[in-house]
Amino acid sequence: MLDVCLLGTGGMMPMPSRFLTALALRLNGRMMLIDCGEGTQVTMKMLGWGFKNIDAICFTHFHADHISGLPGLLLTIGNAGRTEPLRLVGPVGLPVIVDGLRRIAPELPFPLEYIELHREQENPLQLGEFQVSYCPADHMVRCFAYRVDVKRKGKFDPKKAEALGLPKPLWGRLQKEGAVDFEGKIYTPDMVMGQDRPGIAMAYCTDSRPVERLADFARDVQLFICEGMYGDEEKRPKAVENKHMLFSEAAALAKKAGAGELWLTHFSPSLHDPEEYVQNAMDIFPQTSLGEERKCTTLYFPKEG
Amino acid sequence: MLDVCLLGTGGMMPMPSRFLTALALRLNGRMMLIDCGEGTQVTMKMLGWGFKNIDAICFTHFHADHISGLPGLLLTIGNAGRTEPLRLVGPVGLPVIVDGLRRIAPELPFPLEYIELHREQENPLQLGEFQVSYCPADHMVRCFAYRVDVKRKGKFDPKKAEALGLPKPLWGRLQKEGAVDFEGKIYTPDMVMGQDRPGIAMAYCTDSRPVERLADFARDVQLFICEGMYGDEEKRPKAVENKHMLFSEAAALAKKAGAGELWLTHFSPSLHDPEEYVQNAMDIFPQTSLGEERKCTTLYFPKEG
Repeated sequence: MLDVCLLGTGGMMPMPSRFLTALALRLNGRMMLIDCGEGTQVTMKMLGWGFKNIDAICFTHFHADHISGLPGLLLTIGNAGRTEPLRLVGPVGLPVIVDGLRRIAPELPFPLEYIELHREQENPLQLGEFQVSYCPADHMVRCFAYRVDVKRKGKFDPKKAEALGLPKPLWGRLQKEGAVDFEGKIYTPDMVMGQDRPGIAMAYCTDSRPVERLADFARDVQLFICEGMYGDEEKRPKAVENKHMLFSEAAALAKKAGAGELWLTHFSPSLHDPEEYVQNAMDIFPQTSLGEERKCTTLYFPKEG
Repeated sequence: MLDVCLLGTGGMMPMPSRFLTALALRLNGRMMLIDCGEGTQVTMKMLGWGFKNIDAICFTHFHADHISGLPGLLLTIGNAGRTEPLRLVGPVGLPVIVDGLRRIAPELPFPLEYIELHREQENPLQLGEFQVSYCPADHMVRCFAYRVDVKRKGKFDPKKAEALGLPKPLWGRLQKEGAVDFEGKIYTPDMVMGQDRPGIAMAYCTDSRPVERLADFARDVQLFICEGMYGDEEKRPKAVENKHMLFSEAAALAKKAGAGELWLTHFSPSLHDPEEYVQNAMDIFPQTSLGEERKCTTLYFPKEG
């Protein structure tokens, strides 16, 4: 199971009642973040998942509302006793940005490891427990959407194992350890396992226009967390100009992707009551709901059958 | 009159119920800040004084909890429509620090002007409406305490003006415009004014050990806002080691300075209930109170008599 927590719902600037949009994910006791604006460490403190086990922070882009909380968070992670390396992932130029911000946090008790996203970089990335894919978004600057998958192997097929003449004590080893040597012959898991079963998947996209590739990227995710900078349809020219989305555009994207559920986030400071416009999205994609500060869910492997 | 607002009371890291220590001052419709940690713009938004009229931000030092909110604040000041220059004041090295932080806020609609504090720099500084003095504190890194004075001229003495034979229509001009030419002779304000009267004064000191020079620096201020990182007397070794103050040390400093009032701030995250220890300070300096988020006051010229 994958714990998902939307840490805030604000875009552009933090507000008294809105933290900036960022995401925390937890899998097998390890954590990763996507984005980290001013105040992210405060809403994380409220969440209570701790700071020490954050193994990676992925940045969508380098606008301040998505990264300004980094120096303070790094210091807080250090104060939590972390000494293991922390991976930072983001568009090309990440080390230059982080070096600048670290002028006020020069000493950390853990090393930073950078992964800059470009064509030659592997995709998906394996970041500790997390399998993370990325896809270019369509914003004013280089920006990426992220997707996290928890894969699920096929079921062990005892009939296949019996047919191969493998003794039962080796069945468990074959599934857990991979290849096993028995009587001079190598046996691999695929010889005794069924096809991969549907896993857990979620995607996070902000900031962007609703380009087609994002629907492909978020294909069949259980949860799609997507920006909705503006609710009012009349703000369409502004959304186009600033390369953001309307609620209705995010909903159309979720529908195209075949997502299970959509959470809207990254609300403009001018959007005082997002509730007023949520119906614009629900008319297109009924499984839409508004993000809230520390709105959490746990995603499970889909039921089989 | 000088409006004073303590924007937060936290030290080291922002907390769910504590913004980081920073100060807002307002005089004749213009504002200045001292320090600007992560979240300062949020507590300022709650305060409601606006962002556009901030003419200067003074930094005590470059530890993240005193400056990490700068890039976001600069963007918010820009969004408020500022185009006039903004002055940034702080220890030597300020432009390098700010250049680093501005990698995520490269485009601003107003210029920044730097004043680095060193021996050759004038003291006090005139920052728009504000007369600001500075004094080296005693911390782990170069750090300054600040003092703001609102001077008050002496009273106009009509007897002196009459004795000089100055016609009444020139009396007002002489006070407001300075020197006046009358019948070929220059008259200056000091010829018709009494001695300067006591003005408004406040001082702000964090982070520091309670060194003697700070008492001289804060001499006779109406309000002294001072760090009290720890309340418990048993934390003295920690206060010495990390170059901070106990509540009782801040109180002794306020007493030595002859301050009118002391507000304690910059509480350690480990200090859950500062109230528990405030008596330690009040035993030494009864006019002590605990800082609170957005605790405000207005300082007036002292009554004459």
